[in-house]
Amino acid sequence: MENLNFFKKKSLELDKNDSLNNFRNYFCSESDLIYFDGNSLGRLPKSTIDQTNEVISNQWGRELIQSWNKHWFKLINDTAIHLSKMFQCDPSEVFVGESTSNNLYKVIDSLAVSKKFNTIITDSLNFPSDIYIIEEICSRNNLRFEFLKYKNDIECEIELLKNTIQNNPNSIISLSLVSYKSSYCYPYRALNELCEKNNCELVWDLSHAAGALNLNLKKDKFSYAVGCTYKFLNGGPGSPAFIFVSKEKIKSINLTIRGWFGHSKPFNFDLKYEQSDSIEKFRSGTPHILSLSTLPTSLSITNKASIKKIDIKRILMIKYFSEMFDNLLVDRGFVYESPNLKEIGSHISISHNESWRICKSLIKPKTGKKFILDYRPDRFLRIAITPLYSSFEELFLLVDRLIKIVDFNEFNLHNKSKDVVT
Amino acid sequence: MENLNFFKKKSLELDKNDSLNNFRNYFCSESDLIYFDGNSLGRLPKSTIDQTNEVISNQWGRELIQSWNKHWFKLINDTAIHLSKMFQCDPSEVFVGESTSNNLYKVIDSLAVSKKFNTIITDSLNFPSDIYIIEEICSRNNLRFEFLKYKNDIECEIELLKNTIQNNPNSIISLSLVSYKSSYCYPYRALNELCEKNNCELVWDLSHAAGALNLNLKKDKFSYAVGCTYKFLNGGPGSPAFIFVSKEKIKSINLTIRGWFGHSKPFNFDLKYEQSDSIEKFRSGTPHILSLSTLPTSLSITNKASIKKIDIKRILMIKYFSEMFDNLLVDRGFVYESPNLKEIGSHISISHNESWRICKSLIKPKTGKKFILDYRPDRFLRIAITPLYSSFEELFLLVDRLIKIVDFNEFNLHNKSKDVVT
Repeated sequence: MENLNFFKKKSLELDKNDSLNNFRNYFCSESDLIYFDGNSLGRLPKSTIDQTNEVISNQWGRELIQSWNKHWFKLINDTAIHLSKMFQCDPSEVFVGESTSNNLYKVIDSLAVSKKFNTIITDSLNFPSDIYIIEEICSRNNLRFEFLKYKNDIECEIELLKNTIQNNPNSIISLSLVSYKSSYCYPYRALNELCEKNNCELVWDLSHAAGALNLNLKKDKFSYAVGCTYKFLNGGPGSPAFIFVSKEKIKSINLTIRGWFGHSKPFNFDLKYEQSDSIEKFRSGTPHILSLSTLPTSLSITNKASIKKIDIKRILMIKYFSEMFDNLLVDRGFVYESPNLKEIGSHISISHNESWRICKSLIKPKTGKKFILDYRPDRFLRIAITPLYSSFEELFLLVDRLIKIVDFNEFNLHNKSKDVVT
Repeated sequence: MENLNFFKKKSLELDKNDSLNNFRNYFCSESDLIYFDGNSLGRLPKSTIDQTNEVISNQWGRELIQSWNKHWFKLINDTAIHLSKMFQCDPSEVFVGESTSNNLYKVIDSLAVSKKFNTIITDSLNFPSDIYIIEEICSRNNLRFEFLKYKNDIECEIELLKNTIQNNPNSIISLSLVSYKSSYCYPYRALNELCEKNNCELVWDLSHAAGALNLNLKKDKFSYAVGCTYKFLNGGPGSPAFIFVSKEKIKSINLTIRGWFGHSKPFNFDLKYEQSDSIEKFRSGTPHILSLSTLPTSLSITNKASIKKIDIKRILMIKYFSEMFDNLLVDRGFVYESPNLKEIGSHISISHNESWRICKSLIKPKTGKKFILDYRPDRFLRIAITPLYSSFEELFLLVDRLIKIVDFNEFNLHNKSKDVVT
């Protein structure tokens, strides 16, 4: 068994050898706060402050309507270019706008009305609202709703999933590539290939993966994906979501929600709708420019660091944390609720009989630094792994703090009440 | 016939007696630019700069995820409160979020699937993308698409519209309360009553009316409305749209796009969807906080001025402009393309054989002030009437400038090419 001191030394060594160590300087931070909730809301890049100020004061304030031609159409395209660079796909395959829920609806509903499919398959690891959306689409379009409920909420029963796909050719499949609770990550390439063989279309929700995992959407044969940009991509609260559709499939998509900006010539104001042939067909209303304007800056940081290096550091951080966990937290009543290194995304879920009150103790310490991570019912404490701005030393300090909270029963200082967002 | 000098004097007098004259100081402006395009994108309120900076630097930058509980849920509610004050309805009847197109889709599609209706009626004055959306909903739900094409694009043939409603009980009707081209404004109260009598549901698009006309949604018996906030409400480029549903009708709405935030208890993360009973059911994804954060400040200005006074000044400005038009512009080849004072919204459309090149001359003068207004095919020059920040003198200067452009054939300096946004 290694002790605290061993891990402290190790953290400093790992930070010293970390080639991304300087990237934390690109982000705003407070000296009394250690943040492990980048899987809910990423940190604010310093350069975003100037960028949004330019958009508000100059582009809106001074150039007014002229900024559509001068800046804002370019902003939309630039954002897609940055995102496609990270996803290693073509910019013409990426739409940025609206919310993940609306985007998932648009993609799956469009597939559903094509009459090529008879079933939608999803599972109990998927994000709940993705399931709500699919269920409604099924009932409306008379598609069978095949819901796989696994024995636990940590891992997918991969053989069951594969068999279900094989037994249901011509299905739409909706999965979250990294599960929001346990951080389980699917063998996506194998599943993409299996779906192709069985005439199935797999629509991935990449919300908990984008900006964290080194995904090559082309090489790994993705057809459809959606996801958000306010977690590991640091776009800010409610920054616009994205849709990826592989080049070969864009043309055949027939959208059920039409709109001004999805028209092939929006400023002709024709009475007749002529759907754009490009990925722009997904755009219905006027883009939310302020919320979009943060993305080129934050995505630039990710691309400057490179998603490859971010992914490598992610693994090192998880490895380091789980060593500490085995040596220092297991005996203190903590349970590791994430899969092993080969199947994990970019957060680690742990639990304890007192998960919720431990979460409160971290956020409201009597003295010393405040730690923010989040709680998901019924027991999960989620620790975000955000290589761009988190250090190994911070992971060490978190474990040190968890030890103190349970060793001194500090959670007894807090009651069990909950706020709206947990 | 009155001359230029007469109207110059009159403008100064009108400005002197204008009780809203000081409100222009709440907005950013440039001394070399006169802006008549507030019906496309409203001006930036000065206080919005500090407000968005607070949201970005402090709420996102420092308080991070904690801001959902501390600030952002309140922001959503506050925005609805401000908007409901202006619309003279209850805050529980107003949802703010997403785009007008998505909101129109959500409302009309939800009505369409209820199986209570057999037809959707709309007309040629409606905004084109509203028509696209309705057409798709009709074809999908096997509803008849009744499209009224009027003889001209200036005014509604009101008897034809009324007869169509009477002959088609159990219809959904979609109209833009103020038409984007001519500024025609429907007799909304009479139509709301007629629809009620005929078991029809009228869904108004208030995009070109909200913040300009003194609408009392309760007294005037509105049931459903949608609209945007970036025109007369000065929310900034792509600020979130709204939905109004009268209290009595909210419960029966069954949404076809479900979502995380439309769940009655979003942070329980239940696998089972339980639709919120309140107006919040319209929320699917995470709200676009940055784009939303401008609204409380800008709506406060509107409410401080009061929509009643804004509406009174609107009429005075239109009256003053049309007097100048009759005396000075008619003989110079300009055509008045808007209806009379009783049927007009908050912009005036005029045209000329050289509309497009006149528009370019206004924006790019050789010397002197730049004027921005907009052009809509095939001939319309739209002059926004924005009582909060426009003066009578500015209207005078615009007419003065139009006279110079045509008297000296200044439009010949420009070619006929067009940018993306016109």
